[in-house]
Amino acid sequence: MSTPTSVADLGEFGLIARAARIFTAPLTPGFAPGLKIGIGDDAAVWAPTPTTWSVITADALVEGVHFRFSTTDWYDLGWKSLAVNLSDVAAMGASPRYAVLCLGLPAAVSLADVDAFCRGIADVAARYDTALVGGDTVAAPVATISVTVVGETLSTRPGGPPPLLRRDRGRVGDAVAVTGWLGASAGGLRLLESGARTGPGADLSADAPDTDVSDAATALLQAHRRPIPRVAEAALLLQQGVCCAQDLSDGLLGDAQRIAEASDVGVVLEAARVPVSPALAELFPDDALDLALGGGEDYELLCAAPPDVLARAGAALAAAGGPPLTIVGRVVPTPPSGPRVQVVDADGRPRALRGGYTHWT
Amino acid sequence: MSTPTSVADLGEFGLIARAARIFTAPLTPGFAPGLKIGIGDDAAVWAPTPTTWSVITADALVEGVHFRFSTTDWYDLGWKSLAVNLSDVAAMGASPRYAVLCLGLPAAVSLADVDAFCRGIADVAARYDTALVGGDTVAAPVATISVTVVGETLSTRPGGPPPLLRRDRGRVGDAVAVTGWLGASAGGLRLLESGARTGPGADLSADAPDTDVSDAATALLQAHRRPIPRVAEAALLLQQGVCCAQDLSDGLLGDAQRIAEASDVGVVLEAARVPVSPALAELFPDDALDLALGGGEDYELLCAAPPDVLARAGAALAAAGGPPLTIVGRVVPTPPSGPRVQVVDADGRPRALRGGYTHWT
Repeated sequence: MSTPTSVADLGEFGLIARAARIFTAPLTPGFAPGLKIGIGDDAAVWAPTPTTWSVITADALVEGVHFRFSTTDWYDLGWKSLAVNLSDVAAMGASPRYAVLCLGLPAAVSLADVDAFCRGIADVAARYDTALVGGDTVAAPVATISVTVVGETLSTRPGGPPPLLRRDRGRVGDAVAVTGWLGASAGGLRLLESGARTGPGADLSADAPDTDVSDAATALLQAHRRPIPRVAEAALLLQQGVCCAQDLSDGLLGDAQRIAEASDVGVVLEAARVPVSPALAELFPDDALDLALGGGEDYELLCAAPPDVLARAGAALAAAGGPPLTIVGRVVPTPPSGPRVQVVDADGRPRALRGGYTHWT
Repeated sequence: MSTPTSVADLGEFGLIARAARIFTAPLTPGFAPGLKIGIGDDAAVWAPTPTTWSVITADALVEGVHFRFSTTDWYDLGWKSLAVNLSDVAAMGASPRYAVLCLGLPAAVSLADVDAFCRGIADVAARYDTALVGGDTVAAPVATISVTVVGETLSTRPGGPPPLLRRDRGRVGDAVAVTGWLGASAGGLRLLESGARTGPGADLSADAPDTDVSDAATALLQAHRRPIPRVAEAALLLQQGVCCAQDLSDGLLGDAQRIAEASDVGVVLEAARVPVSPALAELFPDDALDLALGGGEDYELLCAAPPDVLARAGAALAAAGGPPLTIVGRVVPTPPSGPRVQVVDADGRPRALRGGYTHWT
């Protein structure tokens, strides 16, 4: 491949790495002394005081790239815009507190739509004790949404630093686990894009009576439109001794790759163990596993910890009425060659893969 | 006027007020207990601890709306994207600490341009002890930049709350003052849009030898492209007892209106006292005062305080080698009718006005 010269040549993750090098260059010793985690995890972390730490994360959604108004309504868009950021804060083991919104809108957008968007944000904010406290509204050629969320995490022992869930804490011998079921959001997107199950002109809003949509389709649509950030679940994992986790936004494969890189390890995922969404398996039996492995936007938690820690955490989640915690693989030494993440079939043979989502490429 | 139904009907500030009502509806007593200032000031403020408070602000810049690549280069765009947010943090009397960036880019943008943009951000970040710690990069139809900055402010007496610069602290009898000179940025934009002084194809970057540009034009271009956030100056005002201020982003008139509304007072500005940029007066003598009153993007500080406090603050600024602090008017009771902000000529007669910038309208 020739030398990259454009954003499209480099791709999203290459671009982030390139920008990160420029941004961290001025960070000489003594600069930003309160910074605990910078670019490269679900959120950055700094320490206003030794025992109260703050986390910050931001995500952008662009019309025509991340969503289309043919497949989402404004309320769900508001919900999702905030929920995906709450998920990142949760994935650090922190509690979300405050959010700011930069909202770019074409002039013709109706006030009813803006109201619905704001209600979507306000509802998910209230549900997770988060206050929308500021931001900016600007004219833009397409709807463009950037949300930043700040969270907080406190020490659990006197004078000690607050515990965190980090990407770089995977250790050889750890088991790898996920909360909930995977692939439902990707299945919902496929339904919306095909229109097959919902019919043209069907009311796709989550509040509509689902007379023309099966229970399985409803489940997939709901997962895609109103993801549920695993805030309480992440806090419980942390409390049970898990210290390596991130949220599943780009798909199990892509996100396992991120943990593997940050921790400088390999990960082996066992296809037969992946908890495929039952609704997905019902509606798309042929592609269900691929969508669960690579589909993205699940906003479940991916974590790595010693098997006994995960067993305890899974029991605690079950006792709290939470989702299942399913072991899907293990952390291994960095392979001498080939990809850091391998998926194997039940008989241990490597499986051919599709990758996670990346911008521009 | 008929009932507004679109974003364009309502305008930027109407939209913010409408959204703020929806976002603050769930804020029942006991919710967000650490929040000190929400929507409506330069930045929101919360209290991680009683004596260490955090502030947060966000601003978005959209290609074709806030800037065009015919009149800015990528380095300056990066500089400005962060600088305008640092200005908002400063205008609360806080020190900027951390920034996150949501960057939307068309696929064809060159890596050299992205590098220049990141260097512009990194340079202004280093200058103001701010670390860029995270964010998101996405594909977008036009360049779209959202920056969020978090700052910090500490108590100055044991156990007391940190002091702040707020918009709602203007009191009848206060004098109104601004730092520096006004209108230079608006003059720079006019130069760039006309192309008249710079010539087609002229290298407009701030680093270019200004062989074809006069000193006055250079000053205006510089003010427009690389605004200087008044971080140290704001801290000094606060230290001298000023407690009402904001930064000048939308123009003196529009921003005085914001202080007047937040403080529920009126403001009388004296046209003859406005410190018009000398370079602006040289190049655009006929419009200089209008540009200084309504042009926007000065990123100077606008403040209100008792005259003796302002006299002390001005002396302290001068002693520190800072910009002049010029009294431009006074806080008066809310007028029984008509606009809250009036501009009067030297003989006290009201002056006809142009407003500040607002999106969509």
